[in-house]
Amino acid sequence: MADRLPTRWQPRHALCLVTDGSLCAPRTLVEVVSAALQGGVGMVQLREKKLDSRAFVERARAIQALTASAGVPLVINDRLDIALVVGADGLHVGQSDLSVADVRLWLPDALVGLSIESMADLLAAPAGVDYLGVSPVFATATKADAAAALGLEGLAAIRAATRLPLVAIGGIGAHNARAVLRHGADSLAVVSAICAAADPRAAAAELAGCIESESNSRPS
Amino acid sequence: MADRLPTRWQPRHALCLVTDGSLCAPRTLVEVVSAALQGGVGMVQLREKKLDSRAFVERARAIQALTASAGVPLVINDRLDIALVVGADGLHVGQSDLSVADVRLWLPDALVGLSIESMADLLAAPAGVDYLGVSPVFATATKADAAAALGLEGLAAIRAATRLPLVAIGGIGAHNARAVLRHGADSLAVVSAICAAADPRAAAAELAGCIESESNSRPS
Repeated sequence: MADRLPTRWQPRHALCLVTDGSLCAPRTLVEVVSAALQGGVGMVQLREKKLDSRAFVERARAIQALTASAGVPLVINDRLDIALVVGADGLHVGQSDLSVADVRLWLPDALVGLSIESMADLLAAPAGVDYLGVSPVFATATKADAAAALGLEGLAAIRAATRLPLVAIGGIGAHNARAVLRHGADSLAVVSAICAAADPRAAAAELAGCIESESNSRPS
Repeated sequence: MADRLPTRWQPRHALCLVTDGSLCAPRTLVEVVSAALQGGVGMVQLREKKLDSRAFVERARAIQALTASAGVPLVINDRLDIALVVGADGLHVGQSDLSVADVRLWLPDALVGLSIESMADLLAAPAGVDYLGVSPVFATATKADAAAALGLEGLAAIRAATRLPLVAIGGIGAHNARAVLRHGADSLAVVSAICAAADPRAAAAELAGCIESESNSRPS
């Protein structure tokens, strides 16, 4: 993998791991992320909703050591301060997080991702976004406050309405990964399919393989 | 009050309001802060542990309109990102929040306060702190994870060991305010004594009066 990330790395044809430390137990998050990177994860989004700020920084720095070594971007979920303090590659925000405009003032050159959960969210999406997280494609138990599932047709409708890279998330696994890609996702993001997998490296490799073979079969 | 804050405003002889929106109900936080500022609060620390980031920013901007108008500093609790985005006057961190060193890189000129709960915390306090929050002086039900009460003697011991401004907090009200000041506190911070008061303006005025009369009776 590359030693340095290209400027404005774009999450096309990438497997993104969104972390959930509780699903990793009894393994540590570092162990699971390390295995997932070996399996072919191309972006890590660190999501922590319960950690104190200091512990979040410590965890981010531990994960950053892995992603930097793998040449893969580390994106922090929600917390601009953590992204700034650790010098993360990017920040991913949801509809109730900081606005993209506020984020861009402090992270002019970093990757900024925005979650959208509907066509209305897409139409309201501001400038300055590098990629869209489209969620949830399928029903998921991982995110307690997730909206109604978009389904493959909902994903396809969003695909038809934007040229921004789409990272699909929500209930995605090896059994449906190809269908999601064929309905317009550029990249796939998973939580439980890797964090809860018996073999996170193998799970990542299988999903990364789906993305690679699908991207090779598409004209773009 | 002053139109502009002096550089590195020091919280000496000030009444600090640390917010708890739930204690303000059925009044809004804006209503209570507004009344408290009229009563003589000299610093507001906005503490929100449950709000989404976007709602936190919105609330901070609403409170900032009040503090700016009153010429009083607004300090954000814990969240450096919120402080940066709204341009707050300062940040207050606890022992499990971001480190002062990390904060200072992003807020070189703002007020930075650090909570200490023991003599050991004082001895470990880093450079770059503008004031120390000493907590809890007395037992308090406001902060679920508060340490054991220091008592007046514990406060006095910390006073003897540092020249930094001390803002005492924890179980302080009009009934014990003078004793806290006489044991070394430069300033007093309260949560429930104002947020839960039937008349927040009058409660603030009574506490501010205690601070003013005590500071006038001391040589420094």
